[in-house]
Amino acid sequence: MLVRNLLGARYKETPKDCVIASHALMMKGGYMKYMSAGSYSLFTPAKRITNKIENIIREEMDAIGGQEVMFPVVMPASLWEESGRYTSIGSEMARFTDRNNAKMVLGMTHEEAAVHLARDIAASYTDYPFMIYQIQTKFRDEPRARGGLIRVREFTMKDAYSFHTSQEDLESYYDKCFVAYERIFKRAGAKNVVAVKSDSGMMGGSVSHEFMLLTDIGEDTLAICSACDYKANLEVADCITHEIESTVENLEEVATPNVKTIEGLKRVLGVDPTRMCKAVVYQENNTDDYVVVFIRGDLEVNETKLRNYLKTEVHPASGVTEESGIVAGFIGPVGFNGKAKVVYDRSLVGIESFVCGANKKDAHFKGMNIARDVGKVDYVDVAKAYNGGVCPICGKPTITLKRGVEIGNIFQLGTKYSKSMDMTYVDSDGQRKNPIMGCYGIGVGRLCATICEEQHDDYGPIWPMPIAPWQVEICCLQAEDETVKGVAENLYNGLLKSGVEVLFDDRDIRAGAMFADADLLGVPVRAVVSKKTCERGIVEVSFRDKTFKGEVNMATATEDIVKIVNDLKAKYEI
Amino acid sequence: MLVRNLLGARYKETPKDCVIASHALMMKGGYMKYMSAGSYSLFTPAKRITNKIENIIREEMDAIGGQEVMFPVVMPASLWEESGRYTSIGSEMARFTDRNNAKMVLGMTHEEAAVHLARDIAASYTDYPFMIYQIQTKFRDEPRARGGLIRVREFTMKDAYSFHTSQEDLESYYDKCFVAYERIFKRAGAKNVVAVKSDSGMMGGSVSHEFMLLTDIGEDTLAICSACDYKANLEVADCITHEIESTVENLEEVATPNVKTIEGLKRVLGVDPTRMCKAVVYQENNTDDYVVVFIRGDLEVNETKLRNYLKTEVHPASGVTEESGIVAGFIGPVGFNGKAKVVYDRSLVGIESFVCGANKKDAHFKGMNIARDVGKVDYVDVAKAYNGGVCPICGKPTITLKRGVEIGNIFQLGTKYSKSMDMTYVDSDGQRKNPIMGCYGIGVGRLCATICEEQHDDYGPIWPMPIAPWQVEICCLQAEDETVKGVAENLYNGLLKSGVEVLFDDRDIRAGAMFADADLLGVPVRAVVSKKTCERGIVEVSFRDKTFKGEVNMATATEDIVKIVNDLKAKYEI
Repeated sequence: MLVRNLLGARYKETPKDCVIASHALMMKGGYMKYMSAGSYSLFTPAKRITNKIENIIREEMDAIGGQEVMFPVVMPASLWEESGRYTSIGSEMARFTDRNNAKMVLGMTHEEAAVHLARDIAASYTDYPFMIYQIQTKFRDEPRARGGLIRVREFTMKDAYSFHTSQEDLESYYDKCFVAYERIFKRAGAKNVVAVKSDSGMMGGSVSHEFMLLTDIGEDTLAICSACDYKANLEVADCITHEIESTVENLEEVATPNVKTIEGLKRVLGVDPTRMCKAVVYQENNTDDYVVVFIRGDLEVNETKLRNYLKTEVHPASGVTEESGIVAGFIGPVGFNGKAKVVYDRSLVGIESFVCGANKKDAHFKGMNIARDVGKVDYVDVAKAYNGGVCPICGKPTITLKRGVEIGNIFQLGTKYSKSMDMTYVDSDGQRKNPIMGCYGIGVGRLCATICEEQHDDYGPIWPMPIAPWQVEICCLQAEDETVKGVAENLYNGLLKSGVEVLFDDRDIRAGAMFADADLLGVPVRAVVSKKTCERGIVEVSFRDKTFKGEVNMATATEDIVKIVNDLKAKYEI
Repeated sequence: MLVRNLLGARYKETPKDCVIASHALMMKGGYMKYMSAGSYSLFTPAKRITNKIENIIREEMDAIGGQEVMFPVVMPASLWEESGRYTSIGSEMARFTDRNNAKMVLGMTHEEAAVHLARDIAASYTDYPFMIYQIQTKFRDEPRARGGLIRVREFTMKDAYSFHTSQEDLESYYDKCFVAYERIFKRAGAKNVVAVKSDSGMMGGSVSHEFMLLTDIGEDTLAICSACDYKANLEVADCITHEIESTVENLEEVATPNVKTIEGLKRVLGVDPTRMCKAVVYQENNTDDYVVVFIRGDLEVNETKLRNYLKTEVHPASGVTEESGIVAGFIGPVGFNGKAKVVYDRSLVGIESFVCGANKKDAHFKGMNIARDVGKVDYVDVAKAYNGGVCPICGKPTITLKRGVEIGNIFQLGTKYSKSMDMTYVDSDGQRKNPIMGCYGIGVGRLCATICEEQHDDYGPIWPMPIAPWQVEICCLQAEDETVKGVAENLYNGLLKSGVEVLFDDRDIRAGAMFADADLLGVPVRAVVSKKTCERGIVEVSFRDKTFKGEVNMATATEDIVKIVNDLKAKYEI
């Protein structure tokens, strides 16, 4: 492909709405164009990258027995009514009525379609297990589309669905898929990918993992143990606290006029927040009922864990009514009479003496002991894990919080969909049962963008060889010189004939401008042909990632560069 | 792939809503499942076929300099408002409002998106010509989804858009694309494909061609000359009539009580319909105004040509009001006073004496001569071409009407979109101009289904080698016998290692059932391994299209079958 024919402008200025590098570089490099909120058209360089990612995914899915299928993007609402998600999913799902007034939805995920495809034909236990997958467009009406291809509304996704007759069989397949995912990300050239336990969210099911590419621009926070293998999304990470030294004291009321914050109490009373019992007030979304969480003063409430414990959606209370009996700013466990559900976080265990609210205006208690002053309470874990917290696996205080972007996820769904949609098979014991499902997703465009986020410099993306839009870029300076042009064209044709994907820049522009464009296109191997190199009988070769800069003999340039490309490719083979 | 693992049921009974063979066979063969009107999920065999078709298309588009891109399925309505199609297209376009109340549409074609992608960056004449294409899901809310994948609402389409600075350049690229299309259909294995001139419909533009696969189940009718190269969609085909012998007669009113049809007049008056002047009444869609077409009694009005002539949509009048002054059943050119636009079809030229209505109840004229009794009128061609009609190119009466399914189309769009969407470039003369566009579509699923329609027998599809879901199917009878199983597995692994795509059936079922399934899967080469073949030291080989049945030596079976596959592949290479 000739750069002169390549549609797309490359430019220096960072578009003003780009806050992360991959977004800016992919705009500046002519990879994509904004169409509407969270929706982009892709130019050829990006399409070549995503095609390669899709092929890697396809190979790995096929290798674990996956059968590629294709579901419609537009589905009848009735299918989603069967599973209950037509009502349980909110405005993220795009809906319309067709010309016959039938309610339709745009697929944001395809569990319903997968069950629909398989339910009448996998009627016997001998038909199991099987996995079907597709690579298809999805639309999710995200409220916060951001970061270029990182969070869009329309995206290409590989989604896979497996069906099993036992939990053991699901788990064994889940493990296979886990390994296939590791292979996919490695083969695509992603470097810092970790799998973390995660919350299953709207998918339902119990066990699930997210594959996270670690990067500071990630929206997700991960709790990772630096001493062992433990990794979890902060949303579900256990919070295990250090022991706090404390002694039993007497309960004593102290006047704390207008002191309503942990910071204020620390200043006024000189007590460390680890020995305070903080109250955080939520409301249930459905009922507006109050929920008061008592938690150690230095910790935050993890709303996902709280929601999972309460089995209902909650939001931070915007205020409390007088009628509720809750005295905002001065809430405490002793003598609490508010109309609210009360939750005690596990972080309060083992501390003998707390500062806490006295449930009346401008007053706190010192020396509060839960067992003595409140009695027996149930403790649950609803606190956010924190840097330096204790690892739930190895017990060391080595939890580190890192940011990551979710590039894939795998879920053990159980029978949520097969039950609600009445998919059954006859088991070997003659009983009719619901198959157990798993589902497995990878966002293609997001993987492309996060790899760019992970591997770039100030001048452009540094695409790893397996997904690079082209493998070699020939920069031909002074192409108006016939000898130079001849050498470059010879190399171009030789490489093409050897099956190498080559981008050829023979434009009559300054070397600096040509190299700047090449940096933005991020092709791994660059070959420079110029008057100078021709006079010296060589071709300059360098790597986009700056790990190599050298020269090859002009006479053997084709074979030498083919070898270089093959060596780079081999680094990603597993 | 093992047949025992292949998801999808194969069965004998034809589903009752299937009226064409490809639909029935692709349902019975486990290729697809109905989801909602005009929408199917595809099982693996169909997905493998469409993947192969897509790859052939991609190669040919790349070969003529196409750059693969990707447009969103969901687009903002504002983009379609720019081109004017948001209002000019009716209920075929699916529309919804997103969570921010922005109006969105589902792409049924992507001219607007193509202009949006290119308009800011192709600013100089030196940036032209270029062609961009995508292979992407489209949704068109068809009122008459039918025939399985032949006419669906959601489909995968390759759509390409080219941009030029001159009409000559467009035409030269259009010709290239024409040839690429011929290559695509040939390489995919379609046999009876013809390109016909066509109506541009909602796309706008002037010159356009449809590629039609000839089959009796086609919705389109084509006028094809059997003596020369002339081919056209009936919608736009010229109608040139034979000369009709006639002599000048006197105008004479005859009583024809209750005789309102051509058939009736023929019976009552003994005059051939070729010497009658029939009147056909239409109404304009916008105004309900009447349009009366006078046409030779044996011919039909071509509504597309009438619409193009009138430059407005029309529909057959359901009746006429008394107030219009039109006397239904007795309309004629002489003394016509109806409130209507009058159109004279060219078929009336050269006939000296007509039977026609007398514009009053129960009366007709005989001997009507248009020049004498009406005066000078303008004749236009709004008649349907007919079997045995005169070819507009070679002049012979050799027009034959055939049925076809449109599997691709190419349009010269002109500046319709670049003008309305304000896409400009600076030409070599310093002037700002609108680029001239072409667009080029192929429906992937429809091509798959029409090839099945063209190439099948009572037992199943006969897939041509280049798009067959697998190249070889091994039917292993008596796989419970270890020797037999060993031979079959050996062959399976040998072929896989040689890069052959193999389907392996080792199920413990009757030979008849296994062969019936194999017929439905339509794999071109079948290899049968059984006790009998093992005893004889051979493997039976046959072609699905019944052109070959023989045997190969067991010892060399792998190499022999690889050669057979390669020979079959070579037949489609061009």
